[in-house]
Amino acid sequence: MPLRLGTQVITLKTRHPFVIARGGSSDYRVVWVRLADADGVEGWGEADPSAYYGETADTVLAALGKLEPHLPADPFDLEQAEARFAQLAPNSAAARAALSAALHDLVGKRLGQPLWRLWGLDPARAPRSSFTIALDTPERMREKVIEASSYPILKIKLGTDRDEEILKAIRDATDKPIRVDANAGWTRERAFRMLPVLRDFGVEFVEQPLPPRDLEGIAALRRQGVLPVIVDESCVVATDVPRVAGAADGINIKLAKCGSLREALRMVAAARAQGMLVMVGCMIESSLGITAAAHFTPLLDAADLDGAALTVNDPFRGATIEGGQICLPTEPGLGVRRR
Amino acid sequence: MPLRLGTQVITLKTRHPFVIARGGSSDYRVVWVRLADADGVEGWGEADPSAYYGETADTVLAALGKLEPHLPADPFDLEQAEARFAQLAPNSAAARAALSAALHDLVGKRLGQPLWRLWGLDPARAPRSSFTIALDTPERMREKVIEASSYPILKIKLGTDRDEEILKAIRDATDKPIRVDANAGWTRERAFRMLPVLRDFGVEFVEQPLPPRDLEGIAALRRQGVLPVIVDESCVVATDVPRVAGAADGINIKLAKCGSLREALRMVAAARAQGMLVMVGCMIESSLGITAAAHFTPLLDAADLDGAALTVNDPFRGATIEGGQICLPTEPGLGVRRR
Repeated sequence: MPLRLGTQVITLKTRHPFVIARGGSSDYRVVWVRLADADGVEGWGEADPSAYYGETADTVLAALGKLEPHLPADPFDLEQAEARFAQLAPNSAAARAALSAALHDLVGKRLGQPLWRLWGLDPARAPRSSFTIALDTPERMREKVIEASSYPILKIKLGTDRDEEILKAIRDATDKPIRVDANAGWTRERAFRMLPVLRDFGVEFVEQPLPPRDLEGIAALRRQGVLPVIVDESCVVATDVPRVAGAADGINIKLAKCGSLREALRMVAAARAQGMLVMVGCMIESSLGITAAAHFTPLLDAADLDGAALTVNDPFRGATIEGGQICLPTEPGLGVRRR
Repeated sequence: MPLRLGTQVITLKTRHPFVIARGGSSDYRVVWVRLADADGVEGWGEADPSAYYGETADTVLAALGKLEPHLPADPFDLEQAEARFAQLAPNSAAARAALSAALHDLVGKRLGQPLWRLWGLDPARAPRSSFTIALDTPERMREKVIEASSYPILKIKLGTDRDEEILKAIRDATDKPIRVDANAGWTRERAFRMLPVLRDFGVEFVEQPLPPRDLEGIAALRRQGVLPVIVDESCVVATDVPRVAGAADGINIKLAKCGSLREALRMVAAARAQGMLVMVGCMIESSLGITAAAHFTPLLDAADLDGAALTVNDPFRGATIEGGQICLPTEPGLGVRRR
């Protein structure tokens, strides 16, 4: 009997409007995916579409409908299933990532093992996650820093014309480690000016300072030697890694970009082969989506998995980032339950 | 209770002396490694030392003795166990590969799943293996071609001063696909002369035409555009992949070089990220060593896993290459038994 697919759109609400350099919102429509086998065991996954990559909850549903006839007969047949999905729905990474997570969840549940254990990983090696302070007025960003008091590492979204003001407001409120994500919002000129400012504010590293295709500019920034430079939008899948290896110090993996858990592991391997730093990021997601990404964090240097912690109506319980430490579930598969 | 380590040296005998460009022998001492858990479940692995990489059965035993106190408490803790082994015994890849295989075998047996299935692979995608005709007189090589009648792809070891004569003798005896391994036995001048000759004899690709460090020469040969060039000795571990990516069309993975099953998978990912061909090779090994490598062949383009088929006293039964097709066991773990 083939796997049965169930889908449900969930509207996640964030505590504050989540604004980055490209704009933002308080409502995020994600898709909860369920794959049931003949014994009624269910694998769960979540699609967290990014408008930046051309996906919405509706395109996700359409892609899932297209992929449904191509689900594997056996959920263990992961390599071929994912390859088929990638061929049939190349531009639906979020949808594919949900199916990938659901298949992995099902395999783990069948074997009675948490995914990190099937992958041979030590959950104690999961890094701490940063917690994002989204764009706002300096005063409100300072308030958010206080709300985030339990998180030891902050991530600041910049790429505006008041970046220095924002940094100063946050530095006045805390001396915690800060990481900066410019979401491709700077020009070369501005980035060259900003990196020393970031360093002076004690920033640990900067993500995607320039537009994705400006690898030359990114490489020049890196040669400046001021701060480690991580690429996110410039590096979507594993075949992008060799191209960015000469330009950046590290990559930021996201399941909604790369489209599968196995591709994420391949990105880790490809980046490590280049001696690069590797981190994982997320969208606004429930704990279901976050947990899928959390399972491979023992392989990483850094994580930004605050997507569920930023919401007020997370329907799931899975990996947590309480106190900043990523804590992986010990239940089989993804180890995610309804709240 | 910690895992208990058992070791036993086995002397494999080849049907014919196995001679390559660097010399050869008929007797091969390998080490059978057993890891028993508290329930008496045993994971098996095999160390196939290569003198070229400075290992012998005796250095393997010494390395295993050194690593024994550092075995994981839990065989599932593969990532950290392998990392520890690599740190403690960096020059003992064959010894480490045996422990890696034994741990993977144990995990698979505990879960009741063959390793390929735990890795999400489809055994039907395993490629065919070539069968090696070792260096000998042209007449005896022709005899060996006849003995190898059940194998559809032949691999010829060259790198001598009578390469053309050997090729002609073999081509006179068969029209099967031929692959050539020069084992770093040519000079640049000779390699440039030989590649068009190989092409004219219908050779599919050439392995390691020049010394490992002559990547410039290898790149120049590749630019000649005559035949795909695969590197073996030039590419030992995943961090070598970016370095050889500009020089060669593909890599040949061997467990006795890279030291672990997980490193082999990382090499596949790193090479695929570069768009490279990937094959797997072997030493003279029993079916135990061959089977460990066979489990990841569904990810590969080509395989040369004839190490056990070349012996006359293989103590094990596992993956087979009958008729050239790699056939993966369906039993849990590696799926290897005593004959």
